[in-house]
Amino acid sequence: MTQDTNQNIQSYMTELGEKARKASAVLAAVEAKIKNDALFAIADELITQREALKIENAKDLDAGKEKGLDAAMLDRLSMTNESIDKMAEGLRQISALSDPIGEITDLKYMPTGIQVGQMRVPLGVIGIIYESRPNVTADAAALCLKSGNATILRGGSEAIHSNKAVAKCIQAGLASAGLPAECVQVVETTDREAVGELLRLKDHVDVIIPRGGKSLIERVSKDSLIPVIKHLDGICHVYIDDDANAEKALNVTFNSKSHRYGTCNTLETLLVAKSRASELLPHIKQLFDEEGVELRGCAQTQAIIECNAATEADWNTEYLAPILAIKVVEGLDEAIQHINQYSSQHTDSIITQDVTKTRRFMREVDSASVMVNASTRFADGFEFGLGAEIGISTDKLHARGPVGLIGLTSLKYVVFGDGHVRS
Amino acid sequence: MTQDTNQNIQSYMTELGEKARKASAVLAAVEAKIKNDALFAIADELITQREALKIENAKDLDAGKEKGLDAAMLDRLSMTNESIDKMAEGLRQISALSDPIGEITDLKYMPTGIQVGQMRVPLGVIGIIYESRPNVTADAAALCLKSGNATILRGGSEAIHSNKAVAKCIQAGLASAGLPAECVQVVETTDREAVGELLRLKDHVDVIIPRGGKSLIERVSKDSLIPVIKHLDGICHVYIDDDANAEKALNVTFNSKSHRYGTCNTLETLLVAKSRASELLPHIKQLFDEEGVELRGCAQTQAIIECNAATEADWNTEYLAPILAIKVVEGLDEAIQHINQYSSQHTDSIITQDVTKTRRFMREVDSASVMVNASTRFADGFEFGLGAEIGISTDKLHARGPVGLIGLTSLKYVVFGDGHVRS
Repeated sequence: MTQDTNQNIQSYMTELGEKARKASAVLAAVEAKIKNDALFAIADELITQREALKIENAKDLDAGKEKGLDAAMLDRLSMTNESIDKMAEGLRQISALSDPIGEITDLKYMPTGIQVGQMRVPLGVIGIIYESRPNVTADAAALCLKSGNATILRGGSEAIHSNKAVAKCIQAGLASAGLPAECVQVVETTDREAVGELLRLKDHVDVIIPRGGKSLIERVSKDSLIPVIKHLDGICHVYIDDDANAEKALNVTFNSKSHRYGTCNTLETLLVAKSRASELLPHIKQLFDEEGVELRGCAQTQAIIECNAATEADWNTEYLAPILAIKVVEGLDEAIQHINQYSSQHTDSIITQDVTKTRRFMREVDSASVMVNASTRFADGFEFGLGAEIGISTDKLHARGPVGLIGLTSLKYVVFGDGHVRS
Repeated sequence: MTQDTNQNIQSYMTELGEKARKASAVLAAVEAKIKNDALFAIADELITQREALKIENAKDLDAGKEKGLDAAMLDRLSMTNESIDKMAEGLRQISALSDPIGEITDLKYMPTGIQVGQMRVPLGVIGIIYESRPNVTADAAALCLKSGNATILRGGSEAIHSNKAVAKCIQAGLASAGLPAECVQVVETTDREAVGELLRLKDHVDVIIPRGGKSLIERVSKDSLIPVIKHLDGICHVYIDDDANAEKALNVTFNSKSHRYGTCNTLETLLVAKSRASELLPHIKQLFDEEGVELRGCAQTQAIIECNAATEADWNTEYLAPILAIKVVEGLDEAIQHINQYSSQHTDSIITQDVTKTRRFMREVDSASVMVNASTRFADGFEFGLGAEIGISTDKLHARGPVGLIGLTSLKYVVFGDGHVRS
């Protein structure tokens, strides 16, 4: 790349940032109705433009085939009538969520006579960096719009035509609601340097959200000068306690692993209390054998059922595949210790009927979602009642766990006085 | 520095980090009573050790005089009977605050039958980097302890003897409550490289809080691989609106500026609506002339009162001194625009009797604390009812405004099921 191109990209990205900052001030102040009108108008436009969207999408699919993208990737990239309808439906659902912005909580009189409370406000400008799914363009823009944030969207180069076409629909919807076009901007260059520039726009962008595979998220986290909301791994555990109900234990374990293999809230390591291992492991083996799931067990597991040997590496692995690691533990203490050492702090569940152990597990397991007698697959914005999610955070600061509209906001203090001064 | 020393410091800091992480798991699980017992015991020990503390402090003061520290710095460094009593009293006050840890909020049944809520939990390990005040050692340790976090404290080298002596009292208190010594660790080397190492301990430290001057905070923010809770500047505004009550306007303006000059919530730029300028500016001049405050006005201000000329630089300056910049603005729109452009997003106040303008100012000014008819000097953890504060954040993510116990915690999701699986 020449220095000229570099400078062009730098000034292009800086301009996007400045425009986004301006638009964010407008968005922060508009009433919910206008934002909802825009979301509905974008949904309508997506339906109206279905054929045009598919034509642009076909360009990406053709280029993808030529580049030799695999079937799974082409599938994620492809837009159909059904997927476009789903995108529009998603926007309408987001418009139906209550507007979090401007809510004042905990407004109280202080001894001095001033009233102090907190008002929920947008973060400002959000940069979203994602891979090949064009539906993220609409989803992410909608969540940011509803929460009063301006957005800069940088999708994968393999989806550039699709993303630009979706962006056109977004622009039409913003215009019909009287909102500035710069509320949602799609980066139109596929140059990789644009990502680097986006991550350096710390005066114009308040938070970066990467959505995609681990390598994307690692790169973004490493290079960003702006705070990042992210999750890296989903190494989730189920611990079957001495006092577990056998049927619940088997059901929850099976659902946590086999409901879907490729999701971040899928079970990867099963811990079984020693006192229950010889009773339950044969049933577990039968369930997963029928499902074609490979089991990798510790020595104690292998003494009870036939399976491959688990090594240290297995406790650290997010398989995202039909493989399950199994470890027999002494009891609750060892389970909590194992989880806090190897878990990615995403989602961990205990199966027990005992209230004392429930109390300890809930408090001492240091993960974003901690569960009792429930499938790890519930760790999801929709299942948690957030309405929609922009991702799941395994960070501790700001947003933790599924991130919905609230995670895209901040709280400022508001003070109401009547000429009050400090003495 | 030799490579050996560097490696020694690296392994020393890593060891502190690992120990802190272990202690944090203990602290996260203990009941409030034990933490409160420790706080009381530390307070008692500070009183008991008053003479020993003063002897150690004298070593720092002597070294400081030899190094030629100025009077203000020596004053901040010095420990007296009174300042030790105040430190102890601060600890007792923190022990009296209610324990935020473990509180479960918003626990609701979802359509699937699971119950989902959020539990307040400690962040884990907090690194505090501060300058010469030895009382920070006790204050910061106490706030972190109460919120269930392990702490690594790195004070200024000029206070090393004092800090070690305070740390000894903290250790005695922890031991008497049965808590591990590693809940609070003071970095015992004065080597500057220790700060750099602390900022790289991202596997062991969850958040860094710098307390001190702007250059310290800038350096820490720039170098840290760990999230930082900080504020850089306090460029605070008062806007006197067309509909201001004159008496309230003068009182709040005077108090915001002259209550104390060196604090971050002190007024630095006064904005006055054009329609009120010729009526109010002469009174303002009189008030501040009597107080010896230098006024620097825009051209319109200078047309009404005699004062120095303000330049662009003045709108960007935190004086921390008896100087006030004054600008006449057209009205609310220009005031909001000026504030959002030049304010450090710390604290800004409008003086008005008009509810419509109040509504707009509160919503549209993008600062950590936004006020109506109240002195900017109220932006403070005690005044806001937080009980104590570890600092004031001008960041938007996580904690914004005065940071008390809640700012040192995070929320995890908790899910209660009864064998529930996802369908």
